[in-house]
Amino acid sequence: MRATVYRKEHFNAAHRLHNPSWDMETNQKVFGKCNNPSYHGHNYELVVKVSGEIDPDTGYVIDMKMLSELIIENVINKFDHKNLNLDVEEFKDLNPTAENIAVVIYNLVRAKLAAQYDLKVLLYETERNFVEYPEAK
Amino acid sequence: MRATVYRKEHFNAAHRLHNPSWDMETNQKVFGKCNNPSYHGHNYELVVKVSGEIDPDTGYVIDMKMLSELIIENVINKFDHKNLNLDVEEFKDLNPTAENIAVVIYNLVRAKLAAQYDLKVLLYETERNFVEYPEAK
Amino acid sequence: MRATVYRKEHFNAAHRLHNPSWDMETNQKVFGKCNNPSYHGHNYELVVKVSGEIDPDTGYVIDMKMLSELIIENVINKFDHKNLNLDVEEFKDLNPTAENIAVVIYNLVRAKLAAQYDLKVLLYETERNFVEYPEAK
Amino acid sequence: MRATVYRKEHFNAAHRLHNPSWDMETNQKVFGKCNNPSYHGHNYELVVKVSGEIDPDTGYVIDMKMLSELIIENVINKFDHKNLNLDVEEFKDLNPTAENIAVVIYNLVRAKLAAQYDLKVLLYETERNFVEYPEAK
Amino acid sequence: MRATVYRKEHFNAAHRLHNPSWDMETNQKVFGKCNNPSYHGHNYELVVKVSGEIDPDTGYVIDMKMLSELIIENVINKFDHKNLNLDVEEFKDLNPTAENIAVVIYNLVRAKLAAQYDLKVLLYETERNFVEYPEAK
Amino acid sequence: MRATVYRKEHFNAAHRLHNPSWDMETNQKVFGKCNNPSYHGHNYELVVKVSGEIDPDTGYVIDMKMLSELIIENVINKFDHKNLNLDVEEFKDLNPTAENIAVVIYNLVRAKLAAQYDLKVLLYETERNFVEYPEAK
Repeated sequence: MRATVYRKEHFNAAHRLHNPSWDMETNQKVFGKCNNPSYHGHNYELVVKVSGEIDPDTGYVIDMKMLSELIIENVINKFDHKNLNLDVEEFKDLNPTAENIAVVIYNLVRAKLAAQYDLKVLLYETERNFVEYPEAK
Repeated sequence: MRATVYRKEHFNAAHRLHNPSWDMETNQKVFGKCNNPSYHGHNYELVVKVSGEIDPDTGYVIDMKMLSELIIENVINKFDHKNLNLDVEEFKDLNPTAENIAVVIYNLVRAKLAAQYDLKVLLYETERNFVEYPEAK
Repeated sequence: MRATVYRKEHFNAAHRLHNPSWDMETNQKVFGKCNNPSYHGHNYELVVKVSGEIDPDTGYVIDMKMLSELIIENVINKFDHKNLNLDVEEFKDLNPTAENIAVVIYNLVRAKLAAQYDLKVLLYETERNFVEYPEAK
Repeated sequence: MRATVYRKEHFNAAHRLHNPSWDMETNQKVFGKCNNPSYHGHNYELVVKVSGEIDPDTGYVIDMKMLSELIIENVINKFDHKNLNLDVEEFKDLNPTAENIAVVIYNLVRAKLAAQYDLKVLLYETERNFVEYPEAK
Repeated sequence: MRATVYRKEHFNAAHRLHNPSWDMETNQKVFGKCNNPSYHGHNYELVVKVSGEIDPDTGYVIDMKMLSELIIENVINKFDHKNLNLDVEEFKDLNPTAENIAVVIYNLVRAKLAAQYDLKVLLYETERNFVEYPEAK
Repeated sequence: MRATVYRKEHFNAAHRLHNPSWDMETNQKVFGKCNNPSYHGHNYELVVKVSGEIDPDTGYVIDMKMLSELIIENVINKFDHKNLNLDVEEFKDLNPTAENIAVVIYNLVRAKLAAQYDLKVLLYETERNFVEYPEAK
């Protein structure tokens, strides 16, 4: 019996959308006010989806306290109250769009999650803009 | 690297559930208070899901401002502060259930969205009743 | 020891903003798309606030099941899945703005609520537009 | 044309996580404060997902009022304001984790739902911990 | 310049409404399914409102991290994952209605909060039932 | 007949808490991770409360479309996708705590709102931390 469990965490961060290989005008045209050189910020809501067998001894797919700690240690502590562009090495050469942040979080969690589990990441940049990686079916 | 982006918009509309090929009694029995001839209404919350490759230059699956504008121009401007039965031609001969509204919205967005993208539509009629088209996996 | 209890209910209704003593042009100018002659609609969220002494025998300000029934019988059954302009007598000569709906609901509940209680009504027309009557302090 | 409809219901219940084949120390270590012998409780939010063809006569996948009644009769009336461990027979020998509660609800609804429909169950134990059964794709 | 700050915390607990000076029948009649002898439970959402001067040096009414810690140490650690009737001494002779829980929380926070601050407590038992103590104006 | 209307808007901004008359160590001690020199950010939710007479001709306390435009022109356009410390002159010498941001917004709206109206401002920095100015009663 396989099920999916979802754990929600959050972090608050500053960022700026910018492609350094483009000139200022192109960046402004493509990214608009998200290109503001002084940065802006968001309350990011993160939902980590883990699928696997329900363990008959515990009734758990995975211990949610352990999953929460894994996310906090590997993602939240790195991203919370930070400037994604300046403070987080993964974005030194990667534009911190919601899509790319979701991919980075997926990779950080995937590296620590036991191989028996399937993983997906949902990231809410605002209530009205959110992403899922890998893609939803 | 494929991801899914979600954009949420909303519209407020009146509607009435009714099958003109049935008599009043059958309509009343099947649709109950939703059959009220003077109409009732909802705050519809619409979530448009678009799946595709993350563009390495922008970090976007699709520009969310453009997606939002596409939805507003083709769906919201047509439906918002309208009576779906009386004011929206797509429902002249189609019962405006949440399911059918979702199908109509899917077709309106699909016609304008580049073919490379996969599309799904979620429509919340209330917090407790909502639909997805095409069906969820 | 006085406390305030809040009970949330909801109803779905159609309405149209219109002042019959004005011409069409003025109505259109003042009420914009809310003046649509075919109506539009909302999921109204209603919060009824009742203040009074905490009864030492029950630990209740008021029995919330009784308060809920009072609201359902006197407000929800009258308003839900209705056209406020056409189906609800209180709006025959009263424009069903959120403010006026809140006043009407206040009067309907006040007439049935024991005199020992203080009463206020909050009405959410949308998540972003809501009203309180009598005014908030 | 196949779509998915979602119906949300809720129930409030007490529970305790416990494996009777383990000693107290192991239970405490694995389940932590969820193992409290006097129980704790939750406002469970339940979302039932039903997929099927949109009926051309009604515009419905399934009548949501009937789906709601099916859930209330077979799940809510059994679980609401109950102690899951003590009052609900399905958990006499089954640990009432969110995963197992979702499986039990799935089986209760599946037994009553016409075979033509696909079914999934989402159960929110808190806003931050929730599960889906069968697993999400 | 005086302002009000709000801090939201939560706890999950079991409880039962019961007046030991009444017979079983009266308890059943007054408290209905909330009187279930095996208990039921809730996800309680707690909002603590603190009013005072904005400190010109910090720009704070009160340090929210300190307020959060005060609430966690004095309320959440006492109530979370507990049975209010059995595990929390304040309810040994007090019926744990939402109103009485709010009064108890008010007293616990008031005892630790500097006298210069005004205090109010909002407690959400469910999304649809909540209380404020002292009473709202 | 006086009522209160509420209009909700939002903006996304970066900020940093810092008192320039203190040394680095004191700033770090008082403001913790909110003192990060590279900034962090939030999705701010703003609720503007306006109290006044219900106009018998319109049924409005105030035209919500005009209130929304007033807020967007005078607050949102100034704050959205900005760095409050660097881009907004009001915070050149004022620490952008939630309390101070609420005061600044109050002053900006008060200057444009007709004198007959009472005004309050609620600002949500996160779902769990929010402020009201002037203080709640």
